[in-house]
Amino acid sequence: MKQSTLFTKTRREAPADEISKNAILLTRAGFINKEMAGVYDFLPLGLRTLNKIISIIREEMNALGAHEIFMSSLQRKELWQRTDRWDDKSVDTWFKTNLKDGGELGLGFTHEEPISNMLEQFVSSYKDLPFSVYQFQNKFRNETRAKSGIMRTREFIMKDLYSFSTDVAQHEKFYNRVAQAYRNVFDRTGIGHLTYMTRASGGSFSKFSHEFQTLCEAGEDIIHITDGGKKEAVNKELGDGVGEAHKAVEVGNIFTLGTRFSDPYLKFKNEEGKEVPVFMGSYGIGPARLMGTIVEALSDDKGIVWPKEVAPFRVHLIALGDVKELADEAYKTLEAKGIETLYDDRDARAGEKFADADLIGIPTRVVIGEKSLESKTLEVKERTSEEVKYMTIENLIAELKK
Amino acid sequence: MKQSTLFTKTRREAPADEISKNAILLTRAGFINKEMAGVYDFLPLGLRTLNKIISIIREEMNALGAHEIFMSSLQRKELWQRTDRWDDKSVDTWFKTNLKDGGELGLGFTHEEPISNMLEQFVSSYKDLPFSVYQFQNKFRNETRAKSGIMRTREFIMKDLYSFSTDVAQHEKFYNRVAQAYRNVFDRTGIGHLTYMTRASGGSFSKFSHEFQTLCEAGEDIIHITDGGKKEAVNKELGDGVGEAHKAVEVGNIFTLGTRFSDPYLKFKNEEGKEVPVFMGSYGIGPARLMGTIVEALSDDKGIVWPKEVAPFRVHLIALGDVKELADEAYKTLEAKGIETLYDDRDARAGEKFADADLIGIPTRVVIGEKSLESKTLEVKERTSEEVKYMTIENLIAELKK
Repeated sequence: MKQSTLFTKTRREAPADEISKNAILLTRAGFINKEMAGVYDFLPLGLRTLNKIISIIREEMNALGAHEIFMSSLQRKELWQRTDRWDDKSVDTWFKTNLKDGGELGLGFTHEEPISNMLEQFVSSYKDLPFSVYQFQNKFRNETRAKSGIMRTREFIMKDLYSFSTDVAQHEKFYNRVAQAYRNVFDRTGIGHLTYMTRASGGSFSKFSHEFQTLCEAGEDIIHITDGGKKEAVNKELGDGVGEAHKAVEVGNIFTLGTRFSDPYLKFKNEEGKEVPVFMGSYGIGPARLMGTIVEALSDDKGIVWPKEVAPFRVHLIALGDVKELADEAYKTLEAKGIETLYDDRDARAGEKFADADLIGIPTRVVIGEKSLESKTLEVKERTSEEVKYMTIENLIAELKK
Repeated sequence: MKQSTLFTKTRREAPADEISKNAILLTRAGFINKEMAGVYDFLPLGLRTLNKIISIIREEMNALGAHEIFMSSLQRKELWQRTDRWDDKSVDTWFKTNLKDGGELGLGFTHEEPISNMLEQFVSSYKDLPFSVYQFQNKFRNETRAKSGIMRTREFIMKDLYSFSTDVAQHEKFYNRVAQAYRNVFDRTGIGHLTYMTRASGGSFSKFSHEFQTLCEAGEDIIHITDGGKKEAVNKELGDGVGEAHKAVEVGNIFTLGTRFSDPYLKFKNEEGKEVPVFMGSYGIGPARLMGTIVEALSDDKGIVWPKEVAPFRVHLIALGDVKELADEAYKTLEAKGIETLYDDRDARAGEKFADADLIGIPTRVVIGEKSLESKTLEVKERTSEEVKYMTIENLIAELKK
């Protein structure tokens, strides 16, 4: 993408109404726009990164054999009343609205109720089980503390996966596979080394659940690391004060629901011919929260530092001086080789271009200056290093394809 | 995908509460699930088709040079008050809701207000123009007549494109390019031969707009075809009764907004240094409405007929009898060649499998029966033809790759 075609512009100053590092950097770099507290738009660079995170999660969900669906935001009151989650006394984050032709609706904050209801028409026998379905779907939560940028918002895309099993044994097999898939997601998005599978409260459904917690000063949770090598921890809420205490952000959770949402509605005939409720699990990752956590955990004083797999572009190509022809050619070559490139073709000073590149945080910066015209070499620098290398475009491509 | 892993099942009977052909067929075939009147979930097959339509539209938008963004559903009252579109008297399809910590919000039915507001921070000079941005984003409309299946719903993904130009001349150049991009979308999704670029009222913004209208008995509009060869028509609402009258569904619209949403907020300095409002256009396609229109316009008495480019799978492979090994191998070969295949590996009767295949509507049906074990040929039939051909898998793949 030619940077001159990008309608967003970077800002030097932090927005006055933001206190979180992720909101400040993502706004300054032109990734997001604030509509109101806890509500953000994703601008071109931001949407590219968000979609890369979504693609990684989708690949891991598909590898589990889960099928993707897309459910509605609008929710029927009746479904939530029967599980006692409609009343604001039991769930205090509902957004509710009204139909013109009568009746109150909710905006979904999760989907256990509608999905188990939808499945009643399809599940009747143990032969229909197990299976799992997931979606990337806009959730709404009427948050009163929306001060953490894109990490805690009133509207956000959530990857929610639901599993349906005959019994706890079948469930646990799948649950453990999801745990591994989640580890893969955090490894691939560049925060695996900071992320701990953390035992946490199971709420009203079961004794325990597991959270994936990423070490980060902005975290709202405290975890105690119990096994650093295996990346295992315990949430402080369990009262288990063993091991070092750290601030952490919950980037995912996996949950044994049991029959809380299936009994007495979603039932099947087991091998003995007896009608029993389906055994359920639910598993969440918020892609934007993950994106915010990456910014919080990895950025430096110059700006964002994106891991390769989630960066909006792989290369930031910067033209300095009277080098249009050579730089245009390098841009075309990189794109033709499938290397996603943000090409700074703007008429701007070197200092401004370098500061923007550091702020935007693309992994590899490639400068073409007037010296390149003779030497035919490019100046290559990684975002995380001060070392500058000079290489031909062929060598650069070979390096990037490694 | 192995059909045995699909949690959805086909139904013989039409759902009692649906009257539209698209809702009946898509529900019976397991593509959608109704949450309430005008609110549907997309199940695995349905989401695959919806995503193919979205991909085609995205390619055409990117070819225009438009950049993709993703804005919020939650809307600030103030932005809509200043353009006089907040009050229920001026817009009667709002869903509204309330923040826990005070204040009324709306759920966006379109995005002219927030997008022009967002751009105020980025646009200051004629050098920043022209550009265009688009999104696939969930819209909400509080419809009272929600009886047309997925063609008129209370919640739906919309592709909305907005253009920003210095003046009407620059605008019109882009507007004409969008018209061609829209024609490409309808050609590629298989309804181009039925779709007319139709002059319609410009509402309160300008004298005319253009709709893309697809001939279809379920249509709520009447168009008069003025040039069949050029696929041009006029909407009856213009009072222009020339040419044959036909029922049609509006599958897209393109709109000159002028300065209705920019003046006096989104302004720029023109070449003479004078501050003037940006000249805007907006352009919509509802992917689910398009999907519903395809079903309405192309299905037959046996079920849905998907055009190749939007079918959930390219091939429906059906195993009959004791042929598991050969059929598994054919499935692996097709998938390895990049041919998306729904593999009916279920233990079911031939009649049931054939009826399901006709209902689901995948373009090419490939049967492996016990005769195939000796002959090594597959029985190949197009959904739209009665003719059966026998061919080896190599020939089939060559045929499909043409």
